[in-house]
Amino acid sequence: MILTVTLNAALDVTYEVDALVPRDSHRVRAAYERAGGKGVNVARVLSALGTPATVTGLAGGPTGQLIRDELRAAGLRDELVPMAGDSRRTVTVVSREDGDATVFNQPGPQVNPVSWADFTARFARLVREAAVVVLSGSLPPGLPSDAYAQLVRSAAGAGAATVVDTSGPALLAALAAGPDVVKPNAAEIAKVTGHQDVVAAAEALRALGAQAVVASRGPEGLYAVAPQGAWRATPPHRLSGNPTGAGDACVAALAASLAHGDPWPVRLREAVALSAAAVPCPVAGDVDADLYDQFRTTVSVENTHASHVH
Amino acid sequence: MILTVTLNAALDVTYEVDALVPRDSHRVRAAYERAGGKGVNVARVLSALGTPATVTGLAGGPTGQLIRDELRAAGLRDELVPMAGDSRRTVTVVSREDGDATVFNQPGPQVNPVSWADFTARFARLVREAAVVVLSGSLPPGLPSDAYAQLVRSAAGAGAATVVDTSGPALLAALAAGPDVVKPNAAEIAKVTGHQDVVAAAEALRALGAQAVVASRGPEGLYAVAPQGAWRATPPHRLSGNPTGAGDACVAALAASLAHGDPWPVRLREAVALSAAAVPCPVAGDVDADLYDQFRTTVSVENTHASHVH
Repeated sequence: MILTVTLNAALDVTYEVDALVPRDSHRVRAAYERAGGKGVNVARVLSALGTPATVTGLAGGPTGQLIRDELRAAGLRDELVPMAGDSRRTVTVVSREDGDATVFNQPGPQVNPVSWADFTARFARLVREAAVVVLSGSLPPGLPSDAYAQLVRSAAGAGAATVVDTSGPALLAALAAGPDVVKPNAAEIAKVTGHQDVVAAAEALRALGAQAVVASRGPEGLYAVAPQGAWRATPPHRLSGNPTGAGDACVAALAASLAHGDPWPVRLREAVALSAAAVPCPVAGDVDADLYDQFRTTVSVENTHASHVH
Repeated sequence: MILTVTLNAALDVTYEVDALVPRDSHRVRAAYERAGGKGVNVARVLSALGTPATVTGLAGGPTGQLIRDELRAAGLRDELVPMAGDSRRTVTVVSREDGDATVFNQPGPQVNPVSWADFTARFARLVREAAVVVLSGSLPPGLPSDAYAQLVRSAAGAGAATVVDTSGPALLAALAAGPDVVKPNAAEIAKVTGHQDVVAAAEALRALGAQAVVASRGPEGLYAVAPQGAWRATPPHRLSGNPTGAGDACVAALAASLAHGDPWPVRLREAVALSAAAVPCPVAGDVDADLYDQFRTTVSVENTHASHVH
C-alpha cells in the first residue's frame, strides 16, 4: 500500500462562468467540488492505475467532512485525522469562453499541537502497512518546519520508503531526515541551493541528506540524481496544460515504481509518461490512460553528467 | 416585529487578494464568511437601527448550518427552515491594491415541494407576529414564479403589510396579490412595463396590483407613487459605492417606516438617508450610523408629477 499525506487537505471548488471580467458580478453556471491537496491528487492517480493508496492528513469542520465524503465516494481509503478548525477551500474560476483558469487558494486553519499529536499517532500506525509514503504539499500554519522530517524518520523506522514533494523551509528541513526521493522543480532547487545547474543543485540536496533527487524542468522533462547514477528523461514532444496535475502524476509514478523496485531509468520513464498524460487533464488527479500507454513507449531516457546540464 | 424572507439564503464569502489577475494563482490573504441574501441584509440593517427583525427563508446542508450559526452570532432571530440540498455561496474577491470587488454567485439548490410546504407552514405561523413582511431577492430554482404572490396573500390574511424587492417574472407575478410596496429600480420597471418615464412606469405597476411603487434611480434618489400622491427624494450629494447594500438599506427603511405608520415623505426621506449611509460600506447589511443621522436632516423631498420625470 502507498500512503499519501496531505497535511493541508482542501475542498477544491470549480466555478464555471461565461467569462471572467474583473469588477463584474458573475453568474456561476456550474459548480463542482472535490477533495484536493497534492497528496489527495497523488492517491487519485495511484488509484486510477490500480495501485492501492490510502489518504491521511488533517481535515476539520464542515469543509473537512465534505472532503472526506468525496474521498469515500471516489473509492479512496480515507484515513484523514480530524482537526480543530475548518479545512480550507480552493476556488478555481474557469472561463467557458477560453478555458482559462484563475485560482484562489485559502491558507487553511492553524494546526494546534493536539491535532498534530493525533496525526503523528495515526501516521505511526498506518506507516506499518505502507511500502512507500508520499509527503506532498505545503505545511499548514502552526506546524513546525521539520514536520516532514519527523514523518520521514517515523516512516524509515517502520521500513517504509519516502517521497517528499514540497518547497522552501519544509523541503530543507526534510532533507536532514534522509528521505529516499525528493522531487523539487528546477527553479525551486536553484533557489534553495544557489546552483543554476540542475545536477549540481541535485547533488547539493543529496549532500544535505536526500538519497535521490528528481528535478522537474516542466515540459523539458525530468532529471534524477541517485546513488546509482544520473539520468534525464524527455517526453516525446512538449506539452502544455495543467502543471499541478503533471507534478502530482509524476510523484504518483515515482512512488509506484519505488514500491515495485524498478530501476531508475524505468522510474523516470514512468514519471515522465504519467506526467505528460496528466498535462491535458484540466483537474489535478486525473490522467489520460490512452496517452499514458502511448507515452510509456516513446519517452527517451539517457545517462547524464553534471557538465551536460544547464 | 419585521419579518424578512430570504428564499435563496447564501453564505457570503469574501476573499482578500493582493490584486486580481485573470489566469493567475492567488494566495487568499484573508477570508470572511457571513450570512447573506437580500432579506438577511435587510434584517441586519433593521437590527442595527434597533428594530426587531426575524429572518426566515430556506437553508440546507452544511452551508445552511454555517449561515444559521452566523445569523445567531450576529444576534438576529433565526427562523430559517431546513431544506434538502446545500445552500449556495457567493464569493467576492476584493483586491487590496484598489479595493475593486469581483463577485461569483452560485445559483443555489433546487427547492423541492416538501421544503416549500415546510416553509409556507412556518411563514403562516411567523407572519401572525409581524407588522411588516419583506420579500427580497430572486426566487431559487424549483419554486413557482408566483411564490411571492402566495406569501403576500398569506401575509395580508394575517394583517401584515408587505414590501417586495425582486425583479422579472417574480415581480410581475407578485403584483397580482396586491403588495403594499414594491421597490424595483428604474431600469427594471422600464423593462417590465415598457415606460421610460419613472412615474408612468410606476403607475403601470400600480394598475397591475401594487398599492405603492418606490423606484430607485441609484445616486439620483427615489420616486414613490402611492394612492396618496407621488414624491421624489434626492440625497444631498451623489454618492458612489455599494449598490447592493444601498438597495437593501432602502428596503429596511421602507419596512421600518411602514411599521411606524410614517407618511410617505418621511418614508422616502428615511429610505434615501439610510441608502446613502450604506453606499460607503463595502459589505451589504452595514450602514454608517453617523452618515445616516447627518443625511436625515439634508435629504430633500418634493411632490412630483408624471410630466416632470424622465
